[in-house]
Amino acid sequence: MTTVGILGGGQLARMLALSGAPLGLRFLVMDTVADACAGQFAPMIVGDWRDETALAEFASRVDVATFDFENVPAEAAQWLAERVPVFPSPTALAVAQDRLAEKTLFRDLGIPVPPFAAVDSRASLEAAIARIGTPCILKTRRLGYDGKGQFRLKSPGDLDAAWDALGVQATTVGLILEGFVAFESEVSVVAVRGRDGEFRAWPITQNWHVDGVLSASLAPAPVDAALADAAVAHARALAEALSYVGVFALELFCRGGELLANELAPRVHNSGHWTIEGSETSQFQNHLRAVLGLPLGATRMVGEACMLNWIGEMPDARAVLAEPGGHWHDYGKESRAGRKVGHATLRADTPQELAATLERVGKSLGREVQVQPVIAALR
Amino acid sequence: MTTVGILGGGQLARMLALSGAPLGLRFLVMDTVADACAGQFAPMIVGDWRDETALAEFASRVDVATFDFENVPAEAAQWLAERVPVFPSPTALAVAQDRLAEKTLFRDLGIPVPPFAAVDSRASLEAAIARIGTPCILKTRRLGYDGKGQFRLKSPGDLDAAWDALGVQATTVGLILEGFVAFESEVSVVAVRGRDGEFRAWPITQNWHVDGVLSASLAPAPVDAALADAAVAHARALAEALSYVGVFALELFCRGGELLANELAPRVHNSGHWTIEGSETSQFQNHLRAVLGLPLGATRMVGEACMLNWIGEMPDARAVLAEPGGHWHDYGKESRAGRKVGHATLRADTPQELAATLERVGKSLGREVQVQPVIAALR
Repeated sequence: MTTVGILGGGQLARMLALSGAPLGLRFLVMDTVADACAGQFAPMIVGDWRDETALAEFASRVDVATFDFENVPAEAAQWLAERVPVFPSPTALAVAQDRLAEKTLFRDLGIPVPPFAAVDSRASLEAAIARIGTPCILKTRRLGYDGKGQFRLKSPGDLDAAWDALGVQATTVGLILEGFVAFESEVSVVAVRGRDGEFRAWPITQNWHVDGVLSASLAPAPVDAALADAAVAHARALAEALSYVGVFALELFCRGGELLANELAPRVHNSGHWTIEGSETSQFQNHLRAVLGLPLGATRMVGEACMLNWIGEMPDARAVLAEPGGHWHDYGKESRAGRKVGHATLRADTPQELAATLERVGKSLGREVQVQPVIAALR
Repeated sequence: MTTVGILGGGQLARMLALSGAPLGLRFLVMDTVADACAGQFAPMIVGDWRDETALAEFASRVDVATFDFENVPAEAAQWLAERVPVFPSPTALAVAQDRLAEKTLFRDLGIPVPPFAAVDSRASLEAAIARIGTPCILKTRRLGYDGKGQFRLKSPGDLDAAWDALGVQATTVGLILEGFVAFESEVSVVAVRGRDGEFRAWPITQNWHVDGVLSASLAPAPVDAALADAAVAHARALAEALSYVGVFALELFCRGGELLANELAPRVHNSGHWTIEGSETSQFQNHLRAVLGLPLGATRMVGEACMLNWIGEMPDARAVLAEPGGHWHDYGKESRAGRKVGHATLRADTPQELAATLERVGKSLGREVQVQPVIAALR
């Protein structure tokens, strides 16, 4: 009997546990809050990752550990890795946690990135704006997610406001200035690399964000094959450079037929949730297979798939459940503004059918605005 | 938040909980043994169904109740149904628990059945043998499953041996004598009926048993459409007659292009496990949708599927996981002779590909004998 420990007990941990149960695995989740939704289907330790007593108990009860949350402190990951196998490695996690290290690695590997510069003082911010130009975005190097910890500068005159918002973090988590990319679309590569180095990517996914939070994903992304191949090659280069083990996502911008890497998420990813029904093997099960050194599953599609994120509160399930290819995912969380509480995946045999399904669902739920860009991309 | 109670905590309850989690459901399982495998992923009450205190606690903590086990005593089901909604109903359960009531209902509905007769004494057994002829099978009316509680009579001279084996049960659970059917193949209809009467069946499945225990299932069964339609029509008639709510399986024999009904299983069924990956909606999720009054999911196939049962102990997972359409289900149970401990589902786009996959898996696991009849049916 193998017990997999997961640091972080949110919906990703929950879906990992559900998809790992058929492999005969048991799970132990550790989260800072007692009502973390993975705790509904797996035993849980409530504790802070900086609490060595809690972490030691966690380590003593698991055979291997992984994450549902990329911002586990690198020291906690390192401490754990000295006691049990941890995948992805603390090194890979550390790179992905730091926008500056990440962007530098992208550049070193020849993966195109928007212009960027480290910012550690008001003066260096001024110099960075002068070099990169506006519009640009000031971001914390660490701990940002879903658009948090970011300030967009429309003109050099926004320097003071940006510094007021984030300057205090320049010497704590650190800051990075990035050139703003007026992208035409966003895509992600969700991929997996095994302990033995085997690499597999799912068909690339097109993503739509609203207020910095993922709203919808479509797979396969309607982009040309050369672009998709380039995106996958970038993901593979990254995984190999980091000796990465497990599932990760590489988010990229598309502009004028070119790709620009945005960020690496060192974990199963929201833009890969469609793989549960839309692919032969889900990102969740393949992450576990990788972590355990088992053969990786096929990443081929089963039809066309669109995922719609439910933010804040769950809509009525019936409109989705009544669709022949409608699948519902309620994470068992309390409603709260801005919180990811669930998603739906719609699967169809053809892009035309998928567009028709999205139209019905959007109308029925009063969410025409959410589905409209996906329908446009399908037509 | 809805909590679904499941009486019985084996692999069916486990797979119900795993497939119901995405609907935002919580589960409470009740089983007589503390290590029942559903308890790894759902809270559990350990207690006997005849223990009113345990059953009362169970009832007080659930919104609706269902079964993973058809032999829950009818009184326990009835007691429960007076406190919470129970699906399928105790009446439907009672019919399915009693081979005599079940066979009588089949006959009343015009569903062809092998000849049968109630046996309540040695004299009535003798009369029944004279009427039905040999070979025939003496069975307990209740509590038999997977070939247990049965005695096969090859000639009238086996009467004494049959009576010695089962006669003591004639006045307790009761006995039935059934004509032996020299069938060419066995099929099952796995179907679901909603609270509103909506009925859906998955494509019919061909099954192979070894020593009375299911060994392999193939879907869709390679039978002609008229036969499949007749089987589904029988299942529908049964479901309507019983006002059945939830998933059930109707097992039938095929002989000379004709069907003969064997038995009704009033629950999710081993011959429907392939629906997890091989169909748009699994039998487990559709059972829960039915029980909760939600729209039923599509029962269409996604490719061709074969399920192989693992009895006694789990083979090495790698041979299956390495297959592009290979899916593994380890129930997290201890090994034990004759025990169902897991299954694999192999999915492919064509019968030819599925046959080739089965050949590789059979050879790799040294289970050529298990896969051979399925390969023969596919070719």
